Amino acid sequence: MRIVDLILKKKRGEVLSREEIKFFIDGYVSGDIPDYQVSALLMAVYFRGMDKQETTDLTLAMVDSGDKVDLSSIKGIKVDKHSTGGVADTATLIVGPLVAASGGLVAKMSGRGLGHTGGTLDKLESIPGMNISQTMKRFAEIVNTCGVSVIGQTGNLVPADKKLYALRDVTGTVDNVSLIAGSVMSKKLASGSDKIVLDVKTGSGAFMKDVESASELAKMMVDIGTLAGKETIALVTDMNQPLGNAVGNALEVKEAIEILAGDHDGDLKSVSIALASKMLVLGDIFINERDAEARINEVINNGEALKRFGQMIEMQGGNPEVVNDTSLLPSSDSILEIRSDREGYIQAMNTENMGMVALLLGAGRTKKRDVVDSAVGYWMKKRIGDFVNKGDVLADFYVNDRKNLDESVELFKKSIEIGNNSEKKIKLIYNTVK
Amino acid sequence: MRIVDLILKKKRGEVLSREEIKFFIDGYVSGDIPDYQVSALLMAVYFRGMDKQETTDLTLAMVDSGDKVDLSSIKGIKVDKHSTGGVADTATLIVGPLVAASGGLVAKMSGRGLGHTGGTLDKLESIPGMNISQTMKRFAEIVNTCGVSVIGQTGNLVPADKKLYALRDVTGTVDNVSLIAGSVMSKKLASGSDKIVLDVKTGSGAFMKDVESASELAKMMVDIGTLAGKETIALVTDMNQPLGNAVGNALEVKEAIEILAGDHDGDLKSVSIALASKMLVLGDIFINERDAEARINEVINNGEALKRFGQMIEMQGGNPEVVNDTSLLPSSDSILEIRSDREGYIQAMNTENMGMVALLLGAGRTKKRDVVDSAVGYWMKKRIGDFVNKGDVLADFYVNDRKNLDESVELFKKSIEIGNNSEKKIKLIYNTVK
Repeated sequence: MRIVDLILKKKRGEVLSREEIKFFIDGYVSGDIPDYQVSALLMAVYFRGMDKQETTDLTLAMVDSGDKVDLSSIKGIKVDKHSTGGVADTATLIVGPLVAASGGLVAKMSGRGLGHTGGTLDKLESIPGMNISQTMKRFAEIVNTCGVSVIGQTGNLVPADKKLYALRDVTGTVDNVSLIAGSVMSKKLASGSDKIVLDVKTGSGAFMKDVESASELAKMMVDIGTLAGKETIALVTDMNQPLGNAVGNALEVKEAIEILAGDHDGDLKSVSIALASKMLVLGDIFINERDAEARINEVINNGEALKRFGQMIEMQGGNPEVVNDTSLLPSSDSILEIRSDREGYIQAMNTENMGMVALLLGAGRTKKRDVVDSAVGYWMKKRIGDFVNKGDVLADFYVNDRKNLDESVELFKKSIEIGNNSEKKIKLIYNTVK
Repeated sequence: MRIVDLILKKKRGEVLSREEIKFFIDGYVSGDIPDYQVSALLMAVYFRGMDKQETTDLTLAMVDSGDKVDLSSIKGIKVDKHSTGGVADTATLIVGPLVAASGGLVAKMSGRGLGHTGGTLDKLESIPGMNISQTMKRFAEIVNTCGVSVIGQTGNLVPADKKLYALRDVTGTVDNVSLIAGSVMSKKLASGSDKIVLDVKTGSGAFMKDVESASELAKMMVDIGTLAGKETIALVTDMNQPLGNAVGNALEVKEAIEILAGDHDGDLKSVSIALASKMLVLGDIFINERDAEARINEVINNGEALKRFGQMIEMQGGNPEVVNDTSLLPSSDSILEIRSDREGYIQAMNTENMGMVALLLGAGRTKKRDVVDSAVGYWMKKRIGDFVNKGDVLADFYVNDRKNLDESVELFKKSIEIGNNSEKKIKLIYNTVK
């Protein structure tokens, strides 16, 4: 088999066989197939696409390129949750304790933020003492004890994805549904949970800008999970504005705590409950989502959910008192109120740029090795459809390093479109794919 | 400027500017832009195409990547000739002396064979003593004396093409009209002639399998030449069967000599005269092709054309006696008659495979460093439309190394389709593009 023949085959629009895809992935990971042939193949895949079977074969070949996590020492059905990435999307920190307090099991490996999207590990590390590196034994102990643990990847999981993603990033081949689905699902399948709930974001802050392409990606990922023998469902949810109010690591932990404590409502809470109830049904804890939701509201109201979060933090070395006193989280030197220059209804937000605003303040990374500032970010005061008077506060900025402050304020204001249409409404959950 | 942005731009189907194309070529040749980004860009070019202006900008950026030949010491209009490559296409060896003997000037740099197509330099080197490496001073002297010289490339001409071609070859990005046109025309423009006549091959032995795509390539190359300020015309000619009778280096020299001597007619002669007459008109030697053709027939009949060929051979160190005695050319150990297994009319030939037959006999190269055997090859006895009885000789094989003999005979027979249709006729010259 020669890789150039596979490139030509895909270029002509033909379907690659399982053996051919395995040859490509194995050869690339071993170094036998060079970057320059793989990038040509990826570009051909961009133009010609891969069908469901090819994408599944790609995903499974990627899974086989490295270690697989064995979660068999955790008794019960482990349900994983994954978001395709957005702004102010702290759902994992809320969903985990909600599911655990309701009787489910969440043994989750998360990632770090890159570009305009935040990362769960960065958020967790803003909690004093919190350790996201745990041995597999300890990981299982934590989940067996409190029902939930969120840690960083251990071992050599899906090396093919690391290598492929780095190449796609510099060769303009990121935005293909099969390559995205393969990247996400290979990590999910390798990390050992039994079932998977996906939150596929769509809108101005998501990779998939329209509902149609997000639904296509959702369907592709659900099909892969199913073909690979792991029940998978997906919600397609809105990312046309930051999901929660908080953007920035400690601020997002604060918002998660407020929601778990029942002190805070909004879209982030709604999406979290929708995801958690699906996970509880998938995990055979409840037979329908209505019962699951009722239980979720109960564990919020009776303090069980917040307690679980504190327990998980404590077992991972963090200070559990943060759940009762969010002032223990890192705080910034100063808070700056950003006010509206005009009056009108908020029409739209460029959410990707709003993610970049947090990055400019120091909350995110442009390169993998950048260090994040846990304390900085901003707290939104308005949402799409709200009326604002000139001078009304749009957001509070939490600031340390002022180097990029002017630029971030300017970008923030430019990202919020104010106009006269008072009818502007946005759906939160577009559809469910299973 | 970042190359990844140019990849994304081309991926979206947008037009690259002259500056962007120059950035790409310069960066690639200097090593600043890696192979893996260039191969992704080339694949995007394959799917999105390049317009006339982009292709011209690409070609000129490639020309600027290296040295340019200065032919100003040769007084008069130098007209170059290029064939896109085929089987039994010895036209250069015939056209050069025909044009020179008729009053024109041909200062030509040729290449070697690769894959199923032969190369003029390999053919010339089958002449005892012939030296295709000449200084620029000597090259000019030879053309000034006898009107024609054919040598190998000197200096660092179009390094961008060498690097790009090697990459295209292993990444499935050879067959794009703009990339092919850029590769051909950059070399033509860098090698210093004033005007260019192109012979674009179409058919089973050509890169362009149908007349339409060959005409598109021809038009693209003519446009580039014109935009670059060098008058260019192209003939689209047939390559559905070997053009001449001889396939193999010394055999093709023998056929060229026979045609120049007036002892041999056929398609190779017809195409050579068509090309030579266009070159003579472009070179301002004749005002129309009819007059040019009359003169060409005269220099064949009076021995002038053959004499010029002998003179060129002598000035390049070769034995000029070969033009009077082709037995001085290298000969093979044995000659094998290949006979037809059935009777009928020859319907079609797989000409690319017929080029591979010569390669299997040792006449060609699969890799650049392979050594060719000058003496081997075959001499066709039949053409498409001819009737053959069972047992009739289809070709004489000239054989030394018998290692691949069985395979080559089998491939040869498989390449010739015999059937009942007696009406089969093939055009020789499809159209002229200017």
